[in-house]
Amino acid sequence: MESIKEIINKILEEKKEAGGIKQVFYVACGGSLGAFYPAKIFLETEAVGIKTGWYNSNEFIHNLPKSMGENSVLIVASHKGNTPETVEAARIGKERGIPVIVLTWIPDSPITQYADYVIPYTFGDNKDIAGEKTIKGLLLAVEILNQTEGYPNYEKFMDGVSKINQIVRNACRLVQRRAREFARNYKDDKVIYTIGSGAGFGAAYMECICIFMEMQWINSNAIHSGEYFHGPFEITDKELPFILQLSEGKTRALDERALNFLERYARRIEVLDAKELGLSTIDASVVDYFNHSLYNNVYVVYNQALAEARQHPLSTRRYMWKVNY
Amino acid sequence: MESIKEIINKILEEKKEAGGIKQVFYVACGGSLGAFYPAKIFLETEAVGIKTGWYNSNEFIHNLPKSMGENSVLIVASHKGNTPETVEAARIGKERGIPVIVLTWIPDSPITQYADYVIPYTFGDNKDIAGEKTIKGLLLAVEILNQTEGYPNYEKFMDGVSKINQIVRNACRLVQRRAREFARNYKDDKVIYTIGSGAGFGAAYMECICIFMEMQWINSNAIHSGEYFHGPFEITDKELPFILQLSEGKTRALDERALNFLERYARRIEVLDAKELGLSTIDASVVDYFNHSLYNNVYVVYNQALAEARQHPLSTRRYMWKVNY
Repeated sequence: MESIKEIINKILEEKKEAGGIKQVFYVACGGSLGAFYPAKIFLETEAVGIKTGWYNSNEFIHNLPKSMGENSVLIVASHKGNTPETVEAARIGKERGIPVIVLTWIPDSPITQYADYVIPYTFGDNKDIAGEKTIKGLLLAVEILNQTEGYPNYEKFMDGVSKINQIVRNACRLVQRRAREFARNYKDDKVIYTIGSGAGFGAAYMECICIFMEMQWINSNAIHSGEYFHGPFEITDKELPFILQLSEGKTRALDERALNFLERYARRIEVLDAKELGLSTIDASVVDYFNHSLYNNVYVVYNQALAEARQHPLSTRRYMWKVNY
Repeated sequence: MESIKEIINKILEEKKEAGGIKQVFYVACGGSLGAFYPAKIFLETEAVGIKTGWYNSNEFIHNLPKSMGENSVLIVASHKGNTPETVEAARIGKERGIPVIVLTWIPDSPITQYADYVIPYTFGDNKDIAGEKTIKGLLLAVEILNQTEGYPNYEKFMDGVSKINQIVRNACRLVQRRAREFARNYKDDKVIYTIGSGAGFGAAYMECICIFMEMQWINSNAIHSGEYFHGPFEITDKELPFILQLSEGKTRALDERALNFLERYARRIEVLDAKELGLSTIDASVVDYFNHSLYNNVYVVYNQALAEARQHPLSTRRYMWKVNY
């Protein structure tokens, strides 16, 4: 199978006469969309001429961007490869002759019939974090940028990829006890907020919609640390629980400001400090993009403890797999 | 004062040799950021070569996009012109020689010292909806697109602008009685969700963070209609209240799907149907971009009724204007 580097190289060779890659669309639903958030932020931050789209699949297929054309690449993700809206997005891309890159856990799933390139990823217990959907999505962005405009921090980024698995494993061990304590203290709460910023915000979004709302039926909202002070912070009191992602990198100051406020006016705060959790061994020029993988996996430890304390298994559903919608 | 059309024309004249406008950054906080959401969606959907940024001011100033340079335009908004993060964003733009367009309600406020162009907007009772921040933000996007790549629906868009004020006035009258009933039924709820899609999603975001969380201390989350089925919908039951924006335009199908589900599994649903509220007199090719102004203003009727029923005035704060943060 071709490497991500080879895939992008091949696409660029094919698009040479047409003028290369000018638009990159990341399209998925729910957790898969959240997993693409760091890649979106990477291109928005680091690229000069490339336009980035980050779309829920159903919004995308109902309102296609006019820029989708001969200079576009479509990157979709569906865990089991059968999400109807995402399959339809891939079909439209294929029909229009746009290179379709499919990230899926099941390499022969329905969506792959519309794929020009299939990229499987790791998932589940003992997975390699560097092989996860989030990192694969990021690597596509990094290769696109490096092979077009150039990316001066390319080697440092790859060094980060080589370190992330061990960092996450250590961090998960470190939070074991805290996670159990968190579960004991918060098991009866009806609302839990997540707060984050930068490329790591995608992990706050996923924890909110996929875990608290979907798997635990706890009300939630993922609040951006910078937006917190422009509305949401008025809800803060001594009772309401918040999980704060104190990220490593350029937007840490935003998270610190939120933490300072919470320490004065809230009492029930769980802080996930990326610095303390070991992320800082990754170079400062690229560390922002690794927060998501750290948080997303450290949350797993919390989620298992919470599900156990609440006697509400993470697999419990009332609608998904049960009713048509 | 120059019109928006003249402002964009002037900027393009100045940037002629440098290659015109290639990046447009909308930067603001909270409600002002929400008000820019339709403009972001407009450019993302309609432009081929222009890169759009939509940033919380504090995230922007801590992690400036590399693309900010000689082909960029910076559009910021601050209601009273004194939001520190947004003032700083304008200052950075000015320092780098990027045209800074400031939208503010107070034309001689602190932020205007860094403005190349100041655009005041209407606000408060009896305002002209076509003069509001949201429409001014959109008009900047429309002019930029029309004067660069061209925008075939320009005249239809302007026709929509000429109609929106009357449509909103009629709609606000129409919901008066419903809003009082809503307030009676939902005044004791601890959680109220908003749901929306497309360019109108910004209104769902603003209602969530600025009204429910900030002004009423009610827990909330603005759920995207397409994302609803990929996590959040598992929270749905017969007790939990949802406000659904049934929008007019290309993403209405997403909202209808959410409504169909809610009608089966929820009981406490308030539907704001843009079609019924009169938005369809605006041409179908541009109507999507007017949902936000409709919802944002119809919500005002609901908010006043809710504040009264809860005896919690919309001006109540515990932190803003009271403590340092």
